Amino acid sequence: MSATALAAGLGLRNPDYASKTAFTTTVLPLAADGSAVAQAEAYFESFSPTLVIATEKIGPNAEGIAHMSSGTPAAASRARAEHIFDLAAARGIPSIGIGDNGNEIGFGRIEGAVKKWKPGGERLATRVATDVLFPANVSNWGAYGVIAALSILLGRTDLLHDVETERRMIEACVATHAVDGSTGRHILAVDGTPLAMQQAVVTMLAGIVRNAQIKGYKRPF
Amino acid sequence: MSATALAAGLGLRNPDYASKTAFTTTVLPLAADGSAVAQAEAYFESFSPTLVIATEKIGPNAEGIAHMSSGTPAAASRARAEHIFDLAAARGIPSIGIGDNGNEIGFGRIEGAVKKWKPGGERLATRVATDVLFPANVSNWGAYGVIAALSILLGRTDLLHDVETERRMIEACVATHAVDGSTGRHILAVDGTPLAMQQAVVTMLAGIVRNAQIKGYKRPF
Repeated sequence: MSATALAAGLGLRNPDYASKTAFTTTVLPLAADGSAVAQAEAYFESFSPTLVIATEKIGPNAEGIAHMSSGTPAAASRARAEHIFDLAAARGIPSIGIGDNGNEIGFGRIEGAVKKWKPGGERLATRVATDVLFPANVSNWGAYGVIAALSILLGRTDLLHDVETERRMIEACVATHAVDGSTGRHILAVDGTPLAMQQAVVTMLAGIVRNAQIKGYKRPF
Repeated sequence: MSATALAAGLGLRNPDYASKTAFTTTVLPLAADGSAVAQAEAYFESFSPTLVIATEKIGPNAEGIAHMSSGTPAAASRARAEHIFDLAAARGIPSIGIGDNGNEIGFGRIEGAVKKWKPGGERLATRVATDVLFPANVSNWGAYGVIAALSILLGRTDLLHDVETERRMIEACVATHAVDGSTGRHILAVDGTPLAMQQAVVTMLAGIVRNAQIKGYKRPF
């Protein structure tokens, strides 16, 4: 996570510095057991978040069991991120979920659809809903789409990363032993789609952001 | 048309040679008046087509008037391609239409929807239907999608062009004084989207075609 964030151009700083400095971030731990509840409360106390976002973060089903997209139970070492989102919901703090299989935090918003349509959905559908859910073919692409939308809303061209940065991010991620989600291989691919396809998505979004900033031109025919 | 076809890697040959040789083609004239009817019949007589395809070829509305996507009447010099498709329909020859605005041959298949949803649709909706219609954001992309689908159905990797060829095609097209459809400018852009976005679409499709040829691998988690 830290390596990929740095490759994305986000400086890794302590929470106090990061909270005051654009394009920096903090990576913090979250427990894999019930102590994550108190940890979530402490984080909210320290940082007073105005929005919480989960990207492809696995969430438990109604019985409290979390699953991989294949239907296999998730590792016991899984950080209990659902406590962040349960707390946000209880306190009325806005939340966004981005995912690509139905087992990730946010899909509780359409739990019935996941159970109906996703193979193994009855088991893996998460109970954890967010205010807004972005289902995507690849979760990363959903996150990039959110950044592109934000870029257009704010009229900014410095938020979305570029294709060379995308390459650095995937390389950094794989260099820390992460695997491609579809093949389990240590290659420059995301959910079975090669690096060039990640860069193609970034290029498409960059084109949309760029075109949104062109005003008033009309073709003469 | 000839320059772009050659840049796409299609040799320009006479009809007899082209009909027998893969990756070659013929560019033939079609009249802008009623004589196109007899011309279409002569072409069918000579070539016995088993399929006809139109990509972003403007077709007339029910009153016989063809329009640009902006609602402006089309130039009088427009080739009357509708006669090719009228003849194919009369003879039961399969037809495909690809377009991006509702005024192109094929959209007669959903004429009511064009009239209802497209600005100026009442005027510009074409009467000319094809058996299959591929509406696309950009007509070129629809055509590339058809090639990608064909590649998967046939298990072939040599049908879809690559990103360098895409660049050559757009360059060749603009060099013959064609303009970008959205801005009317002589730039490397298609319907307002830059060359890099065309290449991104080709890359996405190539990735899909490639993945369709990977069989039997299953991730271990």
